[in-house]
Amino acid sequence: MQILLLNPNTSIGITDRMVAVAKRFASPSTEIVARTAPRGVPYIATRAEALIAGAIALEMFAEHGHDADVVIVGAFGDPGLGGLRELASVPVIGLAEAAMLTACMLGRRFSIVTFAQVLGPWYEECVEYHGLTSRLAAMRLVSAPFQELTNVQYELGEAIVEIANRTGAEDKADVVILAGAPLAGLAEQIRDRVLLPLVDGVAAAVCQAETLVALRPRKAAVGSYRRPDPKLSQGLSEALSSLLSGRIAN
Amino acid sequence: MQILLLNPNTSIGITDRMVAVAKRFASPSTEIVARTAPRGVPYIATRAEALIAGAIALEMFAEHGHDADVVIVGAFGDPGLGGLRELASVPVIGLAEAAMLTACMLGRRFSIVTFAQVLGPWYEECVEYHGLTSRLAAMRLVSAPFQELTNVQYELGEAIVEIANRTGAEDKADVVILAGAPLAGLAEQIRDRVLLPLVDGVAAAVCQAETLVALRPRKAAVGSYRRPDPKLSQGLSEALSSLLSGRIAN
Amino acid sequence: MQILLLNPNTSIGITDRMVAVAKRFASPSTEIVARTAPRGVPYIATRAEALIAGAIALEMFAEHGHDADVVIVGAFGDPGLGGLRELASVPVIGLAEAAMLTACMLGRRFSIVTFAQVLGPWYEECVEYHGLTSRLAAMRLVSAPFQELTNVQYELGEAIVEIANRTGAEDKADVVILAGAPLAGLAEQIRDRVLLPLVDGVAAAVCQAETLVALRPRKAAVGSYRRPDPKLSQGLSEALSSLLSGRIAN
Amino acid sequence: MQILLLNPNTSIGITDRMVAVAKRFASPSTEIVARTAPRGVPYIATRAEALIAGAIALEMFAEHGHDADVVIVGAFGDPGLGGLRELASVPVIGLAEAAMLTACMLGRRFSIVTFAQVLGPWYEECVEYHGLTSRLAAMRLVSAPFQELTNVQYELGEAIVEIANRTGAEDKADVVILAGAPLAGLAEQIRDRVLLPLVDGVAAAVCQAETLVALRPRKAAVGSYRRPDPKLSQGLSEALSSLLSGRIAN
Amino acid sequence: MQILLLNPNTSIGITDRMVAVAKRFASPSTEIVARTAPRGVPYIATRAEALIAGAIALEMFAEHGHDADVVIVGAFGDPGLGGLRELASVPVIGLAEAAMLTACMLGRRFSIVTFAQVLGPWYEECVEYHGLTSRLAAMRLVSAPFQELTNVQYELGEAIVEIANRTGAEDKADVVILAGAPLAGLAEQIRDRVLLPLVDGVAAAVCQAETLVALRPRKAAVGSYRRPDPKLSQGLSEALSSLLSGRIAN
Amino acid sequence: MQILLLNPNTSIGITDRMVAVAKRFASPSTEIVARTAPRGVPYIATRAEALIAGAIALEMFAEHGHDADVVIVGAFGDPGLGGLRELASVPVIGLAEAAMLTACMLGRRFSIVTFAQVLGPWYEECVEYHGLTSRLAAMRLVSAPFQELTNVQYELGEAIVEIANRTGAEDKADVVILAGAPLAGLAEQIRDRVLLPLVDGVAAAVCQAETLVALRPRKAAVGSYRRPDPKLSQGLSEALSSLLSGRIAN
Repeated sequence: MQILLLNPNTSIGITDRMVAVAKRFASPSTEIVARTAPRGVPYIATRAEALIAGAIALEMFAEHGHDADVVIVGAFGDPGLGGLRELASVPVIGLAEAAMLTACMLGRRFSIVTFAQVLGPWYEECVEYHGLTSRLAAMRLVSAPFQELTNVQYELGEAIVEIANRTGAEDKADVVILAGAPLAGLAEQIRDRVLLPLVDGVAAAVCQAETLVALRPRKAAVGSYRRPDPKLSQGLSEALSSLLSGRIAN
Repeated sequence: MQILLLNPNTSIGITDRMVAVAKRFASPSTEIVARTAPRGVPYIATRAEALIAGAIALEMFAEHGHDADVVIVGAFGDPGLGGLRELASVPVIGLAEAAMLTACMLGRRFSIVTFAQVLGPWYEECVEYHGLTSRLAAMRLVSAPFQELTNVQYELGEAIVEIANRTGAEDKADVVILAGAPLAGLAEQIRDRVLLPLVDGVAAAVCQAETLVALRPRKAAVGSYRRPDPKLSQGLSEALSSLLSGRIAN
Repeated sequence: MQILLLNPNTSIGITDRMVAVAKRFASPSTEIVARTAPRGVPYIATRAEALIAGAIALEMFAEHGHDADVVIVGAFGDPGLGGLRELASVPVIGLAEAAMLTACMLGRRFSIVTFAQVLGPWYEECVEYHGLTSRLAAMRLVSAPFQELTNVQYELGEAIVEIANRTGAEDKADVVILAGAPLAGLAEQIRDRVLLPLVDGVAAAVCQAETLVALRPRKAAVGSYRRPDPKLSQGLSEALSSLLSGRIAN
Repeated sequence: MQILLLNPNTSIGITDRMVAVAKRFASPSTEIVARTAPRGVPYIATRAEALIAGAIALEMFAEHGHDADVVIVGAFGDPGLGGLRELASVPVIGLAEAAMLTACMLGRRFSIVTFAQVLGPWYEECVEYHGLTSRLAAMRLVSAPFQELTNVQYELGEAIVEIANRTGAEDKADVVILAGAPLAGLAEQIRDRVLLPLVDGVAAAVCQAETLVALRPRKAAVGSYRRPDPKLSQGLSEALSSLLSGRIAN
Repeated sequence: MQILLLNPNTSIGITDRMVAVAKRFASPSTEIVARTAPRGVPYIATRAEALIAGAIALEMFAEHGHDADVVIVGAFGDPGLGGLRELASVPVIGLAEAAMLTACMLGRRFSIVTFAQVLGPWYEECVEYHGLTSRLAAMRLVSAPFQELTNVQYELGEAIVEIANRTGAEDKADVVILAGAPLAGLAEQIRDRVLLPLVDGVAAAVCQAETLVALRPRKAAVGSYRRPDPKLSQGLSEALSSLLSGRIAN
Repeated sequence: MQILLLNPNTSIGITDRMVAVAKRFASPSTEIVARTAPRGVPYIATRAEALIAGAIALEMFAEHGHDADVVIVGAFGDPGLGGLRELASVPVIGLAEAAMLTACMLGRRFSIVTFAQVLGPWYEECVEYHGLTSRLAAMRLVSAPFQELTNVQYELGEAIVEIANRTGAEDKADVVILAGAPLAGLAEQIRDRVLLPLVDGVAAAVCQAETLVALRPRKAAVGSYRRPDPKLSQGLSEALSSLLSGRIAN
């Protein structure tokens, strides 16, 4: 089984971090193929950047999706998820989606803890998009500054532990999601110091990816997630243009 | 890894059917331990019966839960889920919950197709309980009569195919859940004749059970899903009484 | 008119307290028949205990329901309510339900004040179940410890007065519900010291029980609250088994 | 105990019909004092007419409310309810509110059946206002014409029976509310021919009025339902002006 | 184009303030015709007063609406809006409605800032009525006392600036609405001292009024906003009676 | 005043149609500057295409936004709206947003009528995104085939009239939105044959654009719609890269 992990950010360090976590959680027979965005921004922090990244994720999938059995959108907030789900003939999952749906099985209400103030409202829109607002206890932001994105989980680790414990006490959360690709793997590190179960988006996405492959769902042949009708385009990447035109069908 | 599959109905035939499906979807190293309710009703069809079955599921867990790594409540509607999730130190999942959350990853809105009119409103309460009403396209009931519960998927197979295709066309569903333990395994049989992806509750629950074990979430130590304080009871089964009293801790 | 008051807890002291309040609010011609759970836990404090108690409430009704004109589930959180409403040919009401619906007639938003932290999230699920979340101002918990459940209203009375007044000021509540059977009767005691109208669950339930009898609604003959089809069971109490089998019809 | 029943329509025939029903459901010791709007329209059928009637209901209360222990707004849709609840030192209930909250105790979802197409959307706004949209199965309108408002329940009785039964079958309603003051008393007449429990707004309101008096809730002293600060006005009816000014305090 | 601005309060000073703002925002060719309530209260502060004012707004429209191309209800909370929208053959807008819908185009969530504690819950009902609760960040009340209603914006200006900035920081609001006719024009004064965009209800309403006239929407000929059927009334103002009777048709 | 109308489709014919309508509704002094997507698809019909178009809209704005006073996203479904609203220092509006918010001022519930089945679920997600689901009466699709996108309003005009009238009768809609840029201008043509008010997305957007300019709202300086921090990117269009980097600030 091949999982295609698309990092719609341009930071290879974050891809590497996600791959390391993915490999720990994947079955031995699962191959993790990861791609880093060839263009875009180092780390998505706004709606505009998520939009740009979502469109780039489509290009990446068009180019690298041939052999995938399932696709993971490797950024919390799930940029491009809906579009990818239409185009791909295999299942597609986002980090936020996988984390939230998994968290729902561990308690009634989850909190989302992340490390940058600006991400909060956009993440909340993501929760609303998935129809899970009633399951959200709180969106909690660690506001401390940090030096290096790829090290943010070490720099802010203590602060995250504290916030995770506070959201249990103050927001009556049952589960805590550590949000954002740069936090991949942190849940394992701080597991014993937080009083609630933690969900790591990358780990959850890998397990859900394997679940979806195991269930062998067919591609919808009707409705709004069926493969779109072939369409001519102009000025798009060659691979994406081919995919839209129906010349290739990943 | 041991999955404890609790059938809160007394029908051994349904347990057998669920086990057969569970084994096909579990990893080779996963052990499926299944238990059939020693008392209760052959098949839950009302709120009252679900309530009785939920309490019996607690007893079954108290008696058989020692070695489980994860527990599946083997009845659509998830009787006893919340209580089990409090008591168990390992994760607990319900068939309806697993099916719905999995379906959410395959499209925007799912329909639930089942075979007995009476179950509809209770299943809808279950969707509401999980906070997923905005993801529900329709609750669709096959109203044709049938002879034998354990054969219902064969007797009503054609009717279910038809309804599943109609809910795509008429309700704009993206995914179809085949609901009710007696339909376990049917999704694989009719996969090629339904135009939308199908979700089988037992298959979904087994995969989600493995996911939850793989993620190694800790048991909540605070909040409403932490282990309840020890409590004395009277007149309950010995195992359940021990579990509530804190003498055993499954 | 006979009101059957089922206390699904095993504490006779709490039954006595509820009966005392019930008699003060019932019409002179109304007979209050109260039953205390013969098995279960002294006081429901978790989802698991509510589930157990709900199933026991069915047994109690099966055994004692013959002559009732209406049934009250005597525990806040309404364990067993949906199942009882199906099975009984007479109306059934829960303490939480009666308190909340009554509070709705006294203002736009009510707060629920109770005395044990652990009950909050379960009570909130109860509010959601009744579809009244938009009418809830706040769930307020008195976190002070107490010695004796049957005296909790005296021990914590001052703290409850304070919280009730604070929820008016801080949460913009219009009405305050004192939740939990052990608080039965407290509303009358502290009425003059709280600046908002108070609702006592037992008093509200008794008045609503009389209302439902007066209105003479028929038992549903169709739909999900009609009397369930007769069903064979095994291992249940003799009375409950008879009720499910259709041999008796309370 | 005195119940003040305010008919904000000018039709004395409708007042008489409501009083007849009210007397059948009130306790022997309860006095029903009814007032018919001295100005306005014969029967409220639009939002504009409801608004006019709501303001007139305030005038009527100001003039006749001195001795009331509780007030009923005698029109489905509850014109003036919120304002009356602020001004009155005693409880106030509306027909729609009483019917809906009572129906909630008889099943999960109620349908509202009425006799004039134009009323549907306004009644739906009333359901939304009370926060009960999730409890509404359907709004069902009998579209047949009729001659005489005070006889509409006889003229359209058959059609109403048919619609009430259809909403059970087609909308999965558990309870049926017969809406509109002109239908007062009809529930008793057709009780045996409808397969679901029926709720009569006037009967429900009378019973709820007695409930609220029995519970002796205090008037809010803080918050948005406390007695408004005295205010000078001009051009209003003398009684209403006195009430607003604080010179009288019903 | 003629905009009819109805002030349902009796304070001419507030009308003057609204007219001054309206003229600054209206097109040169637009005529602003303003009317002050000939009866009622100086300033609406409760549900009861809003109800009275709503009915008076109907009278004012009946008397002065002949030549209007569009009508503005000049009070936050929009008293009488639904009824006016039915009766008028031209578009009708409320200050709260215009402010909220305009704010929606400037960000995801708006806060409403106003100057009197008592108005909060009624304004929240107004937000709910318009179905915009999910767009509301917070209702923020300046609780400081003031001397003179027509000068409240000067007296409380500093406090309002502070609250407006705090709702951005604390409630994650994107936009701030200054609510209440007495605050008309304040947004322009404090624009540079608040860090979020401000919406002035009167300015928004005038622009929206021009928009609605420009779009030339027809009056609904079916449905619940079509012109009501002619109806006889008694005891209403002559103009309103004529309007209801169909003798005049503004 | 300059309105920048961005057509994120590549069809110049559709741009021309929108400009023609825009000019009819704009003030004489308003300049309409329109741009057609230099790359992408001729007409957005799926989530994937909307995502691509949204990213292209950002590029178009980066290149052409210098002198704009306000920006219109010229495609129903509002691709790129959130991102543009962050980046732009002037207001940004989408066709769907403008149409829906305007429709809210003309009645309680609007229907959306469009001409291609595939667009329905995506448009519904757009309604949800704007938080207006409770104001939606129905999504109605004309399923007839057509030859030429730029002529679709002529080819399907009759069918659209019929559907618009049916949604009034069957869905109790109060207002009808004609959705999709290719329908721009149709509302004026069929105004007299539809019994409900119609809203044209382009006309509404132009009027709302002028409203937002008139109100002079400041750009948020805090919160999630403030100008994003400068960010380095790679591989994006030069203009977009400059905009993200803070080198230019449209």
